[in-house]
Amino acid sequence: MQIKIPIEVSGRHIHISKKDLETLFGEGYQLNKIKQLSQPEEFACEEFVKVEVGAKSFEKVRIVGPLREETQVEISLTDAVGSGIVPPVRLSGDLEDSLPVIIVSPKGSVELQQGLIVAKRHIHCATTEAEELGFKNNDVVSVKTEGERGLIFDNVIVRVSDNYKLAMHIDTDEGNAAGINKIGEGIILK
Amino acid sequence: MQIKIPIEVSGRHIHISKKDLETLFGEGYQLNKIKQLSQPEEFACEEFVKVEVGAKSFEKVRIVGPLREETQVEISLTDAVGSGIVPPVRLSGDLEDSLPVIIVSPKGSVELQQGLIVAKRHIHCATTEAEELGFKNNDVVSVKTEGERGLIFDNVIVRVSDNYKLAMHIDTDEGNAAGINKIGEGIILK
Repeated sequence: MQIKIPIEVSGRHIHISKKDLETLFGEGYQLNKIKQLSQPEEFACEEFVKVEVGAKSFEKVRIVGPLREETQVEISLTDAVGSGIVPPVRLSGDLEDSLPVIIVSPKGSVELQQGLIVAKRHIHCATTEAEELGFKNNDVVSVKTEGERGLIFDNVIVRVSDNYKLAMHIDTDEGNAAGINKIGEGIILK
Repeated sequence: MQIKIPIEVSGRHIHISKKDLETLFGEGYQLNKIKQLSQPEEFACEEFVKVEVGAKSFEKVRIVGPLREETQVEISLTDAVGSGIVPPVRLSGDLEDSLPVIIVSPKGSVELQQGLIVAKRHIHCATTEAEELGFKNNDVVSVKTEGERGLIFDNVIVRVSDNYKLAMHIDTDEGNAAGINKIGEGIILK
């Protein structure tokens, strides 16, 4: 069976906790949504922060809402070049023993002992879609892309939730390796 | 049949013509080899140049010898972000309608109408190896890598020459997408 799936390329961004948001932007601060993302609960915010990764810093890293239990910064391995550190490749939320990172706003800064990762490629899938397609949470599949830089991503984790919608997420290195700029399409190989 | 192949990751670099070398470094200038590369005729040079790509510039881009008929600058698609231009994905030497690039040294500069590319992934293969493995020049194969970011590169061109030695070359985006830092290994799927 071959299943078409939209592929979305994520640039570096940050998910933030209430506590860290308040340290950086002030008590009771509310994120300002500027764009709905493909996952029904996720949105790009107006707010940027500066992120310091080892010897390197990134001036304008966008916050992605909603608030999370724990702050998480996602960069690419190319981003990490020159920083002196190599973040682990992790699923979102799997932050144990991930790397330290410093987050800076005009109002303050937060020094985290862990929270820096490179995102592991994954598929978001609604519970109803998963039933239809025969997937269960944490299934591992491969996804094929076409074109001049066509390739097959192996080890793609399927994440199933009522709050998701079918889409594959890769980072900018993976997007560029596949010749996909921001949005593309793949075929899930089962 | 499965054939193991070393995979080498190429960072941005430049191949240069005699004419452009002399404009940039002076008449009769000779490149200084500092490191033999895997391909018997190729070597990293002591010399760097500055490369201007659209709105962006790269301060220290290493020259790879020997001299070529035509100057060629290879960058990644990630490198191109923020430059305002997107170089075409091309095999080395295929420069027709590639993009303009400016090369600067302390002694001079060269403005090229074409020469800027993103390298198309490829395999170098000695003529004797090709006979043994059943390859001919311009064959298209797939190469599988293992590991957390394991993937299968499709559309890999095989280039056969007496001057080559079996190795696959990918760029830094492709290396990072596959979790390969500088050197790795793959399996050619035939």
